[in-house]
Amino acid sequence: MNIDDDRPHGFASRGVTAPKGFEAAGVVAGLKSTGKPDVAVVVNRGPLKVGAAVFTSNRAKANPILWSEQVIRDGVVEAIVLNSGGANCFTGAFGFQTTHETAEKAAELLGVGAGDILICSTGLIGVGDEVFRQKVLDGTERAIASLASDGGDAASEAIMTTDSRPKRAVEASHGWTIGGMAKGAGMLAPGLATMLVVVTTDAVLTAEEADAHLRAATRVTFDRLDSDGCMSTNDQVTLMVSGASGVAPDPDEFRRRLTAVCDDLAGQLQADAEGASHDISIQVQNAASEDDAVVVGRSVARNNLFKAAIFGNDPNWGRVLAAIGTTDAAFDPYDVDVWMNGVRVCTQGGPDRPREEVDLTPRATVVRIDLKAGDAHALIRTNDLTHDYVHENSAYSS
Amino acid sequence: MNIDDDRPHGFASRGVTAPKGFEAAGVVAGLKSTGKPDVAVVVNRGPLKVGAAVFTSNRAKANPILWSEQVIRDGVVEAIVLNSGGANCFTGAFGFQTTHETAEKAAELLGVGAGDILICSTGLIGVGDEVFRQKVLDGTERAIASLASDGGDAASEAIMTTDSRPKRAVEASHGWTIGGMAKGAGMLAPGLATMLVVVTTDAVLTAEEADAHLRAATRVTFDRLDSDGCMSTNDQVTLMVSGASGVAPDPDEFRRRLTAVCDDLAGQLQADAEGASHDISIQVQNAASEDDAVVVGRSVARNNLFKAAIFGNDPNWGRVLAAIGTTDAAFDPYDVDVWMNGVRVCTQGGPDRPREEVDLTPRATVVRIDLKAGDAHALIRTNDLTHDYVHENSAYSS
Repeated sequence: MNIDDDRPHGFASRGVTAPKGFEAAGVVAGLKSTGKPDVAVVVNRGPLKVGAAVFTSNRAKANPILWSEQVIRDGVVEAIVLNSGGANCFTGAFGFQTTHETAEKAAELLGVGAGDILICSTGLIGVGDEVFRQKVLDGTERAIASLASDGGDAASEAIMTTDSRPKRAVEASHGWTIGGMAKGAGMLAPGLATMLVVVTTDAVLTAEEADAHLRAATRVTFDRLDSDGCMSTNDQVTLMVSGASGVAPDPDEFRRRLTAVCDDLAGQLQADAEGASHDISIQVQNAASEDDAVVVGRSVARNNLFKAAIFGNDPNWGRVLAAIGTTDAAFDPYDVDVWMNGVRVCTQGGPDRPREEVDLTPRATVVRIDLKAGDAHALIRTNDLTHDYVHENSAYSS
Repeated sequence: MNIDDDRPHGFASRGVTAPKGFEAAGVVAGLKSTGKPDVAVVVNRGPLKVGAAVFTSNRAKANPILWSEQVIRDGVVEAIVLNSGGANCFTGAFGFQTTHETAEKAAELLGVGAGDILICSTGLIGVGDEVFRQKVLDGTERAIASLASDGGDAASEAIMTTDSRPKRAVEASHGWTIGGMAKGAGMLAPGLATMLVVVTTDAVLTAEEADAHLRAATRVTFDRLDSDGCMSTNDQVTLMVSGASGVAPDPDEFRRRLTAVCDDLAGQLQADAEGASHDISIQVQNAASEDDAVVVGRSVARNNLFKAAIFGNDPNWGRVLAAIGTTDAAFDPYDVDVWMNGVRVCTQGGPDRPREEVDLTPRATVVRIDLKAGDAHALIRTNDLTHDYVHENSAYSS
């Protein structure tokens, strides 16, 4: 097992099967035209069967989201089935039935109740016909037949869509372990309509603890990753708890480690965003509140002009000010300082250092905004707006 | 004079000098590196000197906006000076002083008060040094020296930035006339940081009437043009009233004609948006309220994935539903119908006609969304997200 505390966005072998008590698999079900793996299953062998999940806040929810929202209510999760190659969103009653049948198939094969099976799907909206259904059902059966205690790698590959590489992370401490996998997509690069994340742990947690830790961790990681402002219909982040380590963790340390896993995966999603040539960290400081800091950072992350300028290595700070001026956060637009990659280009509503001093050629880009309105701060991650982004998202369904 | 009631987006000669009582000019002041005209002046010779204006709602306001907001308070406007080649935004106290001196220069030459001179600027944010100031002042002097009663064409050319053609419109009725000019930019293509519009009329109106008519007209025209979701720091739409026709218009007809001029100019702005290859009309119908219809239309207009799909001639209706699902408008996402260029591709939360039936090759694109939640409606205009958009906005300041 590869523990990489010192490598925030590094590779971690086995992902969701790094913690004890989990088995996983990834198989080819024929949903992807490329013939690559497209159905994954992660099973919790216990002794605990605790689960928590957060879902897209989009009102246009895919069928697997509608199903999973019901499953998670009692905090008991036996397994999760994930498919790429079709979002099963806006596929009508037939599509919901497909999700239901998938859960029943997995439950029957695992000898558990269908109401404890989470489902995730990703791919094109509107795709989910009879052929799709049969492939998902067959793939689920084959995946369950090939479950393995080192199946985390295979599972992480089967959930990939336009991802160029699988995304996994692991943290361990005091006898317990947290493992995770992600695909992105999501607000990052939602051409394929979703960000899916599964995190597992063998720490001993109650359903209430798992839910609170997951919400706290996602709030400052995945929720602050905003590549193109588009909210998916299929986003789901799931935490499954086996308790197989027998260790009840220190709550603060567990939350810190879980946040580290989520942060690691979020960084991998950002680094692999469709078409991006810059990973932009927007650091908002001295805001009147954390909410204000997030709103200000997000306004920049969603400004196409700013994002196109970064693509062109142009430190166009005027576009930062024009973006943040559209928010109702508490600050004086004429008392704001802006740094780009360490150079203060704007101070108190006027130009500061010459823009020529800013080097935007590295992929990692840092924009720091000092609102001088308080002591709260937040980091929002985004990407630039590139020719490749336009190309990949215009050519997607053809 | 060219009256083109039957051509909604047609050409109209003389623009702001079509109504009686106005003189205008456009001159080369050396602000643009291209050597093209860059300072325009429009003067109201009366007998009335009524003015009304609406401004960007961005809190990051350019110096000319801060100035003009004060000038317009008493409803009296003698003239407006507009420059391209520099936004005079975030240029500090020096920049505000430049605006002030420009108004004083124009006032002195025209023999009126500086507090009745509106100023508009457009160009790169952060540009406004001593050289800029001197060129604006000299240009203002030269423009006033060349004022002419047929100067509307020259003025409309001097406010162009990345516009490929000048934008003018005229409506006439019962002895009075409305003329206008626009540059865009704006929320359309704000690479050059602004949409500027000047509308003139020789109808007899009070300041209160002018203000009410202008707000009513802009609310359903310029406010519903949203090419890339980016709000400018310099947007200004001005109505100047000379009363020289001596005719007090029927209020309903005046508002209808003023709205027609604004709609015409908005259509010209959309058709000339930077890098766009489709003009997209988003028709939202059967909304619970007009506000809901606008919110729903705008969510689609600001969705990069949808806009990239249209660029690729891809009728990806799932992205329409994913966009509108992020709003809090009253409707059931699973009871929405969507048409693209006349083909109903989605009905009641599921696929309808095959996407192959939709022809998205024409520049004019119509997306119709039936929310089935009431009887309100709204039209939002936008453009697609193209390679050229990214290129023009990444290469802008280099």
